[in-house]
Amino acid sequence: MQDMQALIGILGGMGPLATVDLMAKIVAGTPAERDQEHVPVVAWNVPQVPDRQKAMDSGAPSPLPAMLQGIERLNAAGATRIAIACNTAHHWFDALAAASRAPIIHIADATLAGLAQSGASDGPVGLIATRGTLRSQLYQRRFAQAGIACIENTEDELDRLFIPGCYAIKRGGLDEGAALLEAAARALLDKGAARLVLACTEVPPAFEHAASALLPICIDPTRALAQACISYWLQARPVQHV
Amino acid sequence: MQDMQALIGILGGMGPLATVDLMAKIVAGTPAERDQEHVPVVAWNVPQVPDRQKAMDSGAPSPLPAMLQGIERLNAAGATRIAIACNTAHHWFDALAAASRAPIIHIADATLAGLAQSGASDGPVGLIATRGTLRSQLYQRRFAQAGIACIENTEDELDRLFIPGCYAIKRGGLDEGAALLEAAARALLDKGAARLVLACTEVPPAFEHAASALLPICIDPTRALAQACISYWLQARPVQHV
Repeated sequence: MQDMQALIGILGGMGPLATVDLMAKIVAGTPAERDQEHVPVVAWNVPQVPDRQKAMDSGAPSPLPAMLQGIERLNAAGATRIAIACNTAHHWFDALAAASRAPIIHIADATLAGLAQSGASDGPVGLIATRGTLRSQLYQRRFAQAGIACIENTEDELDRLFIPGCYAIKRGGLDEGAALLEAAARALLDKGAARLVLACTEVPPAFEHAASALLPICIDPTRALAQACISYWLQARPVQHV
Repeated sequence: MQDMQALIGILGGMGPLATVDLMAKIVAGTPAERDQEHVPVVAWNVPQVPDRQKAMDSGAPSPLPAMLQGIERLNAAGATRIAIACNTAHHWFDALAAASRAPIIHIADATLAGLAQSGASDGPVGLIATRGTLRSQLYQRRFAQAGIACIENTEDELDRLFIPGCYAIKRGGLDEGAALLEAAARALLDKGAARLVLACTEVPPAFEHAASALLPICIDPTRALAQACISYWLQARPVQHV
């Protein structure tokens, strides 16, 4: 056995499918000829976290204590870098990062890095995201610094399309959810978006499940976060003597 | 936040895709209307474990110390029940169970329970499995006690079909791997198997990826293990007050 020097921790459960999706994208994206070359991951996929959106909307119980418990357990398990498999949860990023010995990768930073690598950074992007993610300006601030404008759904579109689509996915209705989310996406294209950032971790698996015609113009922050995890591992992994 | 009373630990990484598959099957199989009703899982998906098959064949370094580290970390993280996302690793089941405070679910027991529930227990089953799983008699002993005969691939079929198929999947060659594994499966049907137990966690995702025509007569121990985890959670979960 080699020394365990680098270990990715995933703070998940929000929802649990998003964590599975991130883990699958880490495996799929890793150049590996055998098991031992894959990224070591410990995942805290515990969905008993109060609803993030409701907490931001109405002062319902905060998800922060449950998320801090996950961060503590991941650090105790030896994680040396942490990824959060939920965009909205990044609203609490500063508090989580302050409590974590292991540095936390920000999903919007990973997305920007992916955009820069792809070279395709022309025109405004449409943000498919929860109201919480939009209000937190997680993406808009970072994208503005990179000279990229963001287009958002209206309150009405969020209420009629995005939110019911997201909750449909959470209860297993992938087809129904994908149809609603595609309608939300088309509203952004009508307003001039050249590409779409699927900035809610529930959305990419639903679009992939539905083989959405929009996929070619979609940017998947979950895939970008997976790539950031892989890049960290490739740079940090020890010499192998398994 | 509710009290965390029940938590599934997954000992994974052997290979990492098998763990993702088990986690996906836990999410898909859980009756849940919202995130908080899903099964809480902590997954140790760390593939830096010496090759199980080589250790059994030739006295190469044992995977047991790395697996024991995973069991220790899962217990430390609060796991109250543990599943092992690798059939061959069950060769070391007794040593792992002895070192674990949390009881470990045996994948062959979960498979038998699934078979009993399905009611479809007629005729011999073909075992698609590594040489290590076959030699360990993990399935044969338990199935014999239930009156179910097992048919195995020959040494030659293992060398030509099963083993290269399995290693193809581990390096990402799902189509190539599925074709080789299907040939191994057809050899078992020729010898009188009525159904197939896909007793290597690499196989179900490959067959699903390839939409194998054999799937209707396949029994998936990973799905059975997922169901055992779900049943445990449904029985053990606390009253929810999220």
